[in-house]
Amino acid sequence: MYALRNDLLLRALQRLPVARTPVWLMRQAGRYLPEYRATRQRAGDFLTLCKTPELACEVTLQPLQRFPLDAAILFSDILTVPDAMGLGLYFAEGEGPRFQRPVRSEASVQALAVPDPETELGYVMAAVRLIRRELGDRVPLIGFAGSPWTLATYMVEGGSSHDFARAKAMMFERPDLLHRLLDTVTRALTAYLNAQVAAGAQALMLFDTWGGVLSPERYREVSLAYMQRIVEALQRESEGRRVPVILFTKGGGQWLEALAASGCDALGVDWCTELGEARRRVGDRVALQGNLDPCVLYGSAQTVRGEVAKVLASYGAGPGHVFNLGHGIHPGIDPERVAAMVTAVAELSPRYHAPVP
Amino acid sequence: MYALRNDLLLRALQRLPVARTPVWLMRQAGRYLPEYRATRQRAGDFLTLCKTPELACEVTLQPLQRFPLDAAILFSDILTVPDAMGLGLYFAEGEGPRFQRPVRSEASVQALAVPDPETELGYVMAAVRLIRRELGDRVPLIGFAGSPWTLATYMVEGGSSHDFARAKAMMFERPDLLHRLLDTVTRALTAYLNAQVAAGAQALMLFDTWGGVLSPERYREVSLAYMQRIVEALQRESEGRRVPVILFTKGGGQWLEALAASGCDALGVDWCTELGEARRRVGDRVALQGNLDPCVLYGSAQTVRGEVAKVLASYGAGPGHVFNLGHGIHPGIDPERVAAMVTAVAELSPRYHAPVP
Repeated sequence: MYALRNDLLLRALQRLPVARTPVWLMRQAGRYLPEYRATRQRAGDFLTLCKTPELACEVTLQPLQRFPLDAAILFSDILTVPDAMGLGLYFAEGEGPRFQRPVRSEASVQALAVPDPETELGYVMAAVRLIRRELGDRVPLIGFAGSPWTLATYMVEGGSSHDFARAKAMMFERPDLLHRLLDTVTRALTAYLNAQVAAGAQALMLFDTWGGVLSPERYREVSLAYMQRIVEALQRESEGRRVPVILFTKGGGQWLEALAASGCDALGVDWCTELGEARRRVGDRVALQGNLDPCVLYGSAQTVRGEVAKVLASYGAGPGHVFNLGHGIHPGIDPERVAAMVTAVAELSPRYHAPVP
Repeated sequence: MYALRNDLLLRALQRLPVARTPVWLMRQAGRYLPEYRATRQRAGDFLTLCKTPELACEVTLQPLQRFPLDAAILFSDILTVPDAMGLGLYFAEGEGPRFQRPVRSEASVQALAVPDPETELGYVMAAVRLIRRELGDRVPLIGFAGSPWTLATYMVEGGSSHDFARAKAMMFERPDLLHRLLDTVTRALTAYLNAQVAAGAQALMLFDTWGGVLSPERYREVSLAYMQRIVEALQRESEGRRVPVILFTKGGGQWLEALAASGCDALGVDWCTELGEARRRVGDRVALQGNLDPCVLYGSAQTVRGEVAKVLASYGAGPGHVFNLGHGIHPGIDPERVAAMVTAVAELSPRYHAPVP
């Protein structure tokens, strides 16, 4: 078993007692940090930043140098996997991600192959190994991927979408094709996440950013079922410790019970569900991660502290809570507010935990 | 009591027995119809279309000439009210609505006045009277408005928003200011909706498009509380008939019980909640309107029919269901699919209702 000075995250994700609530932020290595913007400028563009292990490592560690966070999360993008599947990812200036070759025909679905993570996504594994070495025994490193449905929406739409018309049209008209696409993506993601664990990732998170745009029936069919397949096929132990898995469906507050039954260790919760209510609904099956509205960080330090207090009180006493935002931090946030949030969690959370001997 | 040949909508909204499930579509007078696009081109721009009663009447009636729908809904825009409050609404080409004078300072909130619906929004009332006259006794006319919170987001942001950063920053930092804004908007909307009833609207709907981006606590405070104030202050009877009120919070599936307790007659439900589950949760307090995923209409006629069947079966037997989409129809939909949907509701719904003598 590897040494780890701060194992609060791993313990909380397994609902083991902790002295205080661990905290990290979705997109903590990001544009709200001037040092991130400087590194990105040096890289030239976002994709080069993702694909250069030294730079990805550098930005991954930046938030930890500023704030006493309890986890690092790999700096990467969920769309590196479809990129490695040959779709040709690029970022149009100010327009978000695009694919040169969207997947819309039967032929293009059939042509998709599962990329070898150690070669076609070797830059990610190199980044994981480098970050892990640089992190040492400070805090654990979280690896991640997008959910199959979320990736499929980008792959079919060719980029971001407001209404997911093409992806949903495929779902209604050619469910066989969508399921074949989801199957291939699921196998790719399973290999990709297991390779991250082999490279040194100590926890995993699946981001189902667009599961919340589905009806309950379709959510179970095209999103949850495939996440469950991944969870079942993941390496759950590595280097003598459990590798906890977090599932996060944004907008999935109505489906927490179903998510909790998937076999994962923890659920991400957005701010549209009370954490205490979420806890009552999932019982002791999973830990919960969240759920401060990212917009709270536009407020004063005093506001941030007050809202942190509410989230902690809503979850209540006992283990199983990882403090986080309910979605990624916005680029316009003042880093001082993040400092206020992290401090508030450190100061206010011990009262909810029994002293650990 | 006025004559009405087709009172299915009014009966269903009051949970009275009907022989079949009534149906209409959110945004049924819209860009998916070539005749709408022709009228809009004649008008020159969207705002002129809204502000010219003859043209607003013309497009309101267009979908009824094509499909046997059970209701007309006033053609207008939720932002006409802030426009009448002096914010200067305009539509930048391909960019959605914008305000020349957003409301961001204490002074600008204090300067807001409640517009007189019969003068500053006289063109809406003229359109209601004209539509009502042209409709005759065919089907009822639904009047509508945006919810106070939804309008406040546009007023503070100055237009559409992805993250509602400014509106939420005001909510966290200057709740007094936001509540003052919401109070003024609430008084404006109450007068506006009551004027629509006086002009001839036979049912009312409040569109809370952005309530779903709030935490449960804030939703109750800044959205639901103000919708409830409106519901309590509305004329609920006119021309000898009840004027049913429908509340619709998009993304509000977790708060249906709270919405149902507001005193409204019916709830709009988006496609992210099973209608049958929604019905179990709200019991017999309200009728339910919805909830086909608008993307189903990208599918074949056969797909549309199959999905309509599922929505009807999910609601189940008995009164209290108005068939609709879970959100507005997309501009790219083939009108033939709408025909397929309306036909399917007419053919498949009678089995869920006892024959009416």
